[in-house]
Amino acid sequence: MVVPAAVVKERLRGQRIETPSWAYGNSGTRFKVFAQPGVPRTVEEKIDDAAQVHAFTGVAPTVALHIPWDRADDYGRLAKYAESAGVRLGTINANVFQDDDYKLGSVTNPDRAIRRKALDHLLDCVDIMDRTGSRDLKLWFADGTNYPGQDDIRTRQDRLAEALVAVYERLGAHQRLLLEYKLFEPAFYTTDVPDWGTAYAHCLHLGDRAQVCVDTGHHAPGTNIEFIVAVLLRAGRLGAFDFNSRFYADDDLMVGAADPFQLFRIMAEVIRGGGLDPETGVAFMLDQCHNVEAKIPGQIRSVCNVQEATAKALLIDRDALTAAQYSGDVLAAHDVVMDAYHTDVRPMLAELRAEQGLDPDPVAAYRRSGYGERIAANRVGGTQAGWGA
Amino acid sequence: MVVPAAVVKERLRGQRIETPSWAYGNSGTRFKVFAQPGVPRTVEEKIDDAAQVHAFTGVAPTVALHIPWDRADDYGRLAKYAESAGVRLGTINANVFQDDDYKLGSVTNPDRAIRRKALDHLLDCVDIMDRTGSRDLKLWFADGTNYPGQDDIRTRQDRLAEALVAVYERLGAHQRLLLEYKLFEPAFYTTDVPDWGTAYAHCLHLGDRAQVCVDTGHHAPGTNIEFIVAVLLRAGRLGAFDFNSRFYADDDLMVGAADPFQLFRIMAEVIRGGGLDPETGVAFMLDQCHNVEAKIPGQIRSVCNVQEATAKALLIDRDALTAAQYSGDVLAAHDVVMDAYHTDVRPMLAELRAEQGLDPDPVAAYRRSGYGERIAANRVGGTQAGWGA
Amino acid sequence: MVVPAAVVKERLRGQRIETPSWAYGNSGTRFKVFAQPGVPRTVEEKIDDAAQVHAFTGVAPTVALHIPWDRADDYGRLAKYAESAGVRLGTINANVFQDDDYKLGSVTNPDRAIRRKALDHLLDCVDIMDRTGSRDLKLWFADGTNYPGQDDIRTRQDRLAEALVAVYERLGAHQRLLLEYKLFEPAFYTTDVPDWGTAYAHCLHLGDRAQVCVDTGHHAPGTNIEFIVAVLLRAGRLGAFDFNSRFYADDDLMVGAADPFQLFRIMAEVIRGGGLDPETGVAFMLDQCHNVEAKIPGQIRSVCNVQEATAKALLIDRDALTAAQYSGDVLAAHDVVMDAYHTDVRPMLAELRAEQGLDPDPVAAYRRSGYGERIAANRVGGTQAGWGA
Amino acid sequence: MVVPAAVVKERLRGQRIETPSWAYGNSGTRFKVFAQPGVPRTVEEKIDDAAQVHAFTGVAPTVALHIPWDRADDYGRLAKYAESAGVRLGTINANVFQDDDYKLGSVTNPDRAIRRKALDHLLDCVDIMDRTGSRDLKLWFADGTNYPGQDDIRTRQDRLAEALVAVYERLGAHQRLLLEYKLFEPAFYTTDVPDWGTAYAHCLHLGDRAQVCVDTGHHAPGTNIEFIVAVLLRAGRLGAFDFNSRFYADDDLMVGAADPFQLFRIMAEVIRGGGLDPETGVAFMLDQCHNVEAKIPGQIRSVCNVQEATAKALLIDRDALTAAQYSGDVLAAHDVVMDAYHTDVRPMLAELRAEQGLDPDPVAAYRRSGYGERIAANRVGGTQAGWGA
Repeated sequence: MVVPAAVVKERLRGQRIETPSWAYGNSGTRFKVFAQPGVPRTVEEKIDDAAQVHAFTGVAPTVALHIPWDRADDYGRLAKYAESAGVRLGTINANVFQDDDYKLGSVTNPDRAIRRKALDHLLDCVDIMDRTGSRDLKLWFADGTNYPGQDDIRTRQDRLAEALVAVYERLGAHQRLLLEYKLFEPAFYTTDVPDWGTAYAHCLHLGDRAQVCVDTGHHAPGTNIEFIVAVLLRAGRLGAFDFNSRFYADDDLMVGAADPFQLFRIMAEVIRGGGLDPETGVAFMLDQCHNVEAKIPGQIRSVCNVQEATAKALLIDRDALTAAQYSGDVLAAHDVVMDAYHTDVRPMLAELRAEQGLDPDPVAAYRRSGYGERIAANRVGGTQAGWGA
Repeated sequence: MVVPAAVVKERLRGQRIETPSWAYGNSGTRFKVFAQPGVPRTVEEKIDDAAQVHAFTGVAPTVALHIPWDRADDYGRLAKYAESAGVRLGTINANVFQDDDYKLGSVTNPDRAIRRKALDHLLDCVDIMDRTGSRDLKLWFADGTNYPGQDDIRTRQDRLAEALVAVYERLGAHQRLLLEYKLFEPAFYTTDVPDWGTAYAHCLHLGDRAQVCVDTGHHAPGTNIEFIVAVLLRAGRLGAFDFNSRFYADDDLMVGAADPFQLFRIMAEVIRGGGLDPETGVAFMLDQCHNVEAKIPGQIRSVCNVQEATAKALLIDRDALTAAQYSGDVLAAHDVVMDAYHTDVRPMLAELRAEQGLDPDPVAAYRRSGYGERIAANRVGGTQAGWGA
Repeated sequence: MVVPAAVVKERLRGQRIETPSWAYGNSGTRFKVFAQPGVPRTVEEKIDDAAQVHAFTGVAPTVALHIPWDRADDYGRLAKYAESAGVRLGTINANVFQDDDYKLGSVTNPDRAIRRKALDHLLDCVDIMDRTGSRDLKLWFADGTNYPGQDDIRTRQDRLAEALVAVYERLGAHQRLLLEYKLFEPAFYTTDVPDWGTAYAHCLHLGDRAQVCVDTGHHAPGTNIEFIVAVLLRAGRLGAFDFNSRFYADDDLMVGAADPFQLFRIMAEVIRGGGLDPETGVAFMLDQCHNVEAKIPGQIRSVCNVQEATAKALLIDRDALTAAQYSGDVLAAHDVVMDAYHTDVRPMLAELRAEQGLDPDPVAAYRRSGYGERIAANRVGGTQAGWGA
Repeated sequence: MVVPAAVVKERLRGQRIETPSWAYGNSGTRFKVFAQPGVPRTVEEKIDDAAQVHAFTGVAPTVALHIPWDRADDYGRLAKYAESAGVRLGTINANVFQDDDYKLGSVTNPDRAIRRKALDHLLDCVDIMDRTGSRDLKLWFADGTNYPGQDDIRTRQDRLAEALVAVYERLGAHQRLLLEYKLFEPAFYTTDVPDWGTAYAHCLHLGDRAQVCVDTGHHAPGTNIEFIVAVLLRAGRLGAFDFNSRFYADDDLMVGAADPFQLFRIMAEVIRGGGLDPETGVAFMLDQCHNVEAKIPGQIRSVCNVQEATAKALLIDRDALTAAQYSGDVLAAHDVVMDAYHTDVRPMLAELRAEQGLDPDPVAAYRRSGYGERIAANRVGGTQAGWGA
């Protein structure tokens, strides 16, 4: 039975996609960061840009912060600023990889004093969450080693576990710890949390409010990400996505740009496992680098890509699929899924937006708005935001 | 401080490496199985060949069986045959991937009757273990899907969990379930146990005697296997190795042939985590395909390769390593490891063998023995063993 | 400017997709070949099945043969049989990898007599081409080595070059040699033609009628296949495609099943480089293994997948794309391409088929036809075709 | 027959390994560049550091420059400075990836004026070569695209070819153009010279003095680099190596650190193809990033690693190898190679160094020299060199 458009639209109306403050700043590769005109100089300007994404899409009401890049004197005031701009502050992302002390690791560093410094920063982030009202603390550790022998793999796990326990114990009853994993980079031999299994094992040790964050670009070639999604949802441990896409390593391209079919499959497993239901608590976040494309429309396009993949996944005729699966008809089952994927959902999304008083084409509407030209003209002087600030 | 040769040799004396009955039969790729002269026709002939490997190396006293390839009318008699040949029966490997029924899966098949049939086979294998006196049941499932939509990922996990519980409950108090994972092949979209995290999660659910088996060829490109070894040992869940080596996919080349440095790093983590201590219970097994090279000397070479890697890993000056690691001297720490790796341990191993009354060069001794020529001359007629029997 | 449907349909009408005789026989992995009911026992039955694919799609008028799997006493009679069934004989695929002699290689074997035998087979294939009227000889060599040192890489290149020259000189003026490359399998260390660069270099050495065949499943992870297509078309050396799809290695899944966006990008480069123009001579062939899905509808689905990808690629607004590219607007240029990709072209293809007197839904029509049930009932006894025959 | 140590040492005495000026400056990842004490502030200080590497190894007499990082007012004077420090200026590396203009490419940029600017820089580099007396111009282009559609793949090839012709025509009769390829990074969808095939095809078009540069870290996972070496040597087109090592992507670790067996296999093919003979003109260069380890000893270690791999490769008993290969004894042939690899060549190298008046252990000797402490104390103030200068 064809899934009615009204049902699909109802589910889409409830979806929320968080954008990251750092997507509005400059980013690049180790070879070069190409600055773009109009890039924010302050966290407030980042929030202004995030508010644009929400204004045109209607589904991006929160913005994630990165500490210390987005450090503020008064987070209460910052939260109010955000609200006045039309958005709210979201996930707090801890950064323990840019101090010189962290060359050989942060919470897994052989030096106890450096570990303590890193832990203190993580605890500070929870303080900030208390003030911003954030639910989620996202932890990504750049920690690892470049050479066999450089440090002891197992001892580093012990150090990591110790730090995680300390952070977890500091969390409030409604706060969560999201542990992100990544195969490699910036470490090139071992990474202390390289895969979902390691993140999952640490979360199990911590407790229910420790959940795994799946960054779609952080896997070895060939890894089936939707399988991981299914397994984590089954275990009640999928906390969040960091969305982006890739052809090679952690390319951080716009989500859905490199492999839209994969994004669709991921969203299909999310829906299958109840991950789109608000009570499951799966957070959908973007984490991308707009190195060569314009940043605000890049975020808008990405939000739309997630919506389109979600819409297609919602179109899967679950009854027909189950029937075909149990009949052992491989082609028929596959066809049910492909039928949903091949559907052009853009008209439906345009309709949905019109119903919500939004322009049917958010990217085009943003381009017509003149915002990009205005910030390019007005944001003169100061220091453009980037990964260092 | 340099590790004394006597210490290294003492540890090496205690190491045991199991060879698989199927390594002595024909194997190949989907394109062609090239038959070799002298290949066994019966399980007894496979045992005879395995006994040769033990006779020349002194460290391969057991042979793993694959059921139904090695099905026997009387396993007690088979065990006695093995003993008379100079070896013992080891791990029982269950095979639920070669009946026509298993096209869409065994324990995860959508069809309940097929799942039951597969489970019954697994339970039969435990019966066999009771008769052979085997400690370990190794489970590798070829189950998975080839196309998105073919079957439901999560439901298959439920089915898998159900079967594993039934098998685990059937085990005797001194028996173990070893769950093996594999990224892909023969399934090309999803595999039901694709990575260590999935195997680990199922083992946790089962109990202490469920352990993970690491096949060194079953990972995505770039996966750091020694990290997995370290993490599993830390969690008390590393049950066994299936050793082989690879340049590309699951190539099943002789262990240590493709990346001897990786094998050394793996053995270094095994030792670091106590995995060489008999009480830890880590089983070292070969699982290889000698498609183009001679099989018995191929096994002998592989056993020697594991020994050499172990010897080098034992040579690591742990005190110097730890000191360098804590001093933050990356190069010095790396050098300690490389110094052990670059050492030519073959003279030490030759010495060890001589001390044990063995020929210092097992491959050369085997070649001189004339055994290969004898089996090529005598094993005429009958059906050569292969993956189908 | 939107590309008119009439223009797209006109181009689609001219496209031809060859199906391989072996796709109708049984196939599998090294672990198991699952037989399917109704599989052909003879080359004539394979041709009958291929004729079904053409009957329902209208664009698959030829069938490729694999020698010796499809060896016939009288190829002229076989050609007539094909014509009476509604198709023609197409590309001749030489097979020099299934004789016991070829364990260490065919045309690159260290043994001169085996090299000669392999070459003789290739020359025989040209004789067959003369009789079938085939234009193309496709050469894929399973040759390579499994272990460092097994054979001399460079000497094998010399042997390969010698054989290719001998074959090329034997070709008629209107015949072509298509050299296929593959990263690995069945060889697991070196492959004698592992990449497009090696195939290209040999073709350059031979002459204009030596062209490269791109099998979409034969690349290292991360390889950008459409780039290779663009470069080979620019050099005038893209001879043919072997279409299939993959998630991991050479999975041989249905083309477009694993990454439909990649297939679209490939077809976009084909069109950009003139490869869809008949005079360019690019041959579009399927080369897949329907291990778990039904074979004839699997081929029909695959043909449709190629058509859909082609239709989408034809929809790219080239003027808008070029304008965006020259303006440096990365997002706008990307959007032009994605706009074409996201279009649901199935209605247009249904229309095109109706215009040609075909059923708009070839898979459904085939299923309704009862052909599958008839062959399952009638093809009883005999030996089912597979990779060995 | 065992290869005599004297023969090996004689060949080693003739080997030269170039170090890059930028290895002495700071480097890092996109996440963070960790500064190290004592890093050079000027090109002269880089040369001083390079001279240390030569002083302790005796085989690194030249240093490669990167323009504009190493721009000088008077290259003649710089050359004299180098000579007075005990080294010579070597390969000139052109850099057309760090100006804001190059965001969408340099010689392949859609904007003609930017292409001209990039070409002018390349021609300037030839001017510099005339003054430094350098033989080789190494061209690595960061050019590519991040998104499908961003630019036209084929047109970019045309632009690239045009620039290369212009540079090649400007070269003096004894100068060479080395074209380097790289799979990805900083471009994440297409790279304009992604593989050896593309580099080779452009070199063929240019002429004999255009040669391919193989950077050992620039390949897709699973790529057999020694095969490429063999093929390029056979075609007379292997111009140079950029040595480094990797576990994942272009990690730029110390050569031989990640996979010493691969480095050995590469050197074995170099020797097999005559690439160690000075007249072949293969240049051996390091191109690494010492992100976390000390830089000068890191370079010394790397030079030693190349020497050790070369020594082992020279130890291969070629007669025994060939005999085993022709006899079809896979294991015996493999054993000949492994026998050389497993040999500990460090004593032989220590001997060689002693014969040349060098300390047998260059890293230890450097550490004892106090140079590292001196530069850390003296190089205060100024701006440390890095990838931006």
